[in-house]
Amino acid sequence: MTKYRIAVVGGTGPQGRGLAYRFALAGHEVVVGSRDAGRAKEKADEIAERAGVAVAGGENAAVAAAADVVLLAVPWDGHGELVTGLADALAGKVVISCVNPLGFDGGGPYGLVLEESAAQEAQRLVPSAWVVGAFHHVAALSLWKTPDALSHEDVLVCGDDVEAKELVAGLATAVTGKPGIDAGALRLARQLEPLTAVLISMNKRYKTRSGIAITGIQV
Amino acid sequence: MTKYRIAVVGGTGPQGRGLAYRFALAGHEVVVGSRDAGRAKEKADEIAERAGVAVAGGENAAVAAAADVVLLAVPWDGHGELVTGLADALAGKVVISCVNPLGFDGGGPYGLVLEESAAQEAQRLVPSAWVVGAFHHVAALSLWKTPDALSHEDVLVCGDDVEAKELVAGLATAVTGKPGIDAGALRLARQLEPLTAVLISMNKRYKTRSGIAITGIQV
Repeated sequence: MTKYRIAVVGGTGPQGRGLAYRFALAGHEVVVGSRDAGRAKEKADEIAERAGVAVAGGENAAVAAAADVVLLAVPWDGHGELVTGLADALAGKVVISCVNPLGFDGGGPYGLVLEESAAQEAQRLVPSAWVVGAFHHVAALSLWKTPDALSHEDVLVCGDDVEAKELVAGLATAVTGKPGIDAGALRLARQLEPLTAVLISMNKRYKTRSGIAITGIQV
Repeated sequence: MTKYRIAVVGGTGPQGRGLAYRFALAGHEVVVGSRDAGRAKEKADEIAERAGVAVAGGENAAVAAAADVVLLAVPWDGHGELVTGLADALAGKVVISCVNPLGFDGGGPYGLVLEESAAQEAQRLVPSAWVVGAFHHVAALSLWKTPDALSHEDVLVCGDDVEAKELVAGLATAVTGKPGIDAGALRLARQLEPLTAVLISMNKRYKTRSGIAITGIQV
C-alpha cells in the first residue's frame, strides 16, 4: 500500500483525532493540525502514544502545506473562512472533507438546508484541489476506542476526479480493512454529509454507536 | 402480527408494486391504487398472481378511504397536488411516505434542494394524518424478484408519532424479516429521501442493487 503524508486539519476534534489514529496505525505519516500549534502537538502526542508511532503536530496552514493529502475535519461553523485561509496550502492537493453541516435543537440533530455541501464549498474555494468527500459516518469513538478494523462498516467516497477518489477509497482500508465504496459525484456529498444526523439520532435512541454498511457491493 | 388493510397509492409504479407484493405475502390485505382504476386492477392481478393471494385495485382516493394504512409510493413530480386531492381520505390515518424527491441529469441522480421533504409536505397538507417516512431505500427489483426476506438490509423509519412509527417499523418485517429501525423525527426524512440518489449512483457504478444496513443496532 502506498504511504502518504496526511495532514489532519482540525485534528484536535474527535473525528480528526480518530482518523489520525487510524491513519497512523496503518503506517501513514500523520501530522495533526490546529489553529494553535501547541494544542496540535499535545494532541499529536496523545495519538502517537496510543498508536505507538510518531505523529507530528503544527499550525493548520503549515501542516497542510507540507502534506500529500489533507483531511479537513473541522466544524461546519467557520468552514468557508478556514478553507479560504488555507487555499494556498490546499492548491493542487487531494483534499478529503468529512465535514458535516448539522444543526442541533430540542428535536435533536438535523441536516442544514444548503444548496452546497461542505465538500462542494471547499472545491469552489480551492478550484485546483482534488476534493473528495469521505469518512462522514464512522463514529469518532469507534475510531478511537480500539485498533480493530471497523470491518462491518463501509466508507462512502464521493468526488469528481477518479484518481483522487481511488486514492481516498484506498485510505479507507485504514479504517474498515477494505477499500471505500465509490458513491458517485462530489455533489452527492449533499446527501452523505447530513446523513450523519440520522446516525446521531439513532445513537441516542438505541444508546449505541451506529454505522453505515452498503449491501450488494463487494469492493 | 397484526394484519392491516394497506392501500398502496401509486401501486402501479415499481416501488409501490414491490412493496404491495411484500405486504400481500406477509398476510396483509393489500389494495393497489392508481389514478386509473382499470390500471390499478391490472397491476393488482399481476401482484396477486405472484403472491398467491387476493389483491384488489381501485382509484387512489377510494382505496385510501377504505384502508387502515396508506402507503404513498408516487413520483415527487405532482406530489403536493396528489396529496391535497387525497386529504379527506388520508385524514386521521397512518400514512407512510417512501417518496424520493430526486433529480436526474447528465451527472446522474441527485437530491433536490428542498426545505421540506416529501413526508413533511404530506404532513403539512394533511395535519391530522400520522405521517411516517420509510421504505425509501429497498430497491424495487429486490422487492419483486424473489419472495425472500431482504434480511441483510434495514428499513429506516422516521416520524413524530411513536405509535405510528412502531406500526410502520412492524410492517418492515414483511420486507426484511425484522422490524424497521427508528431513525428519528419526521424532519429526518429530508436526509433519508435523497439518500436514494447515492444508492442509484452506486447501482450504476457497480452494476448491482445496493441497499442500506445499519451497524451497531439490534432490533
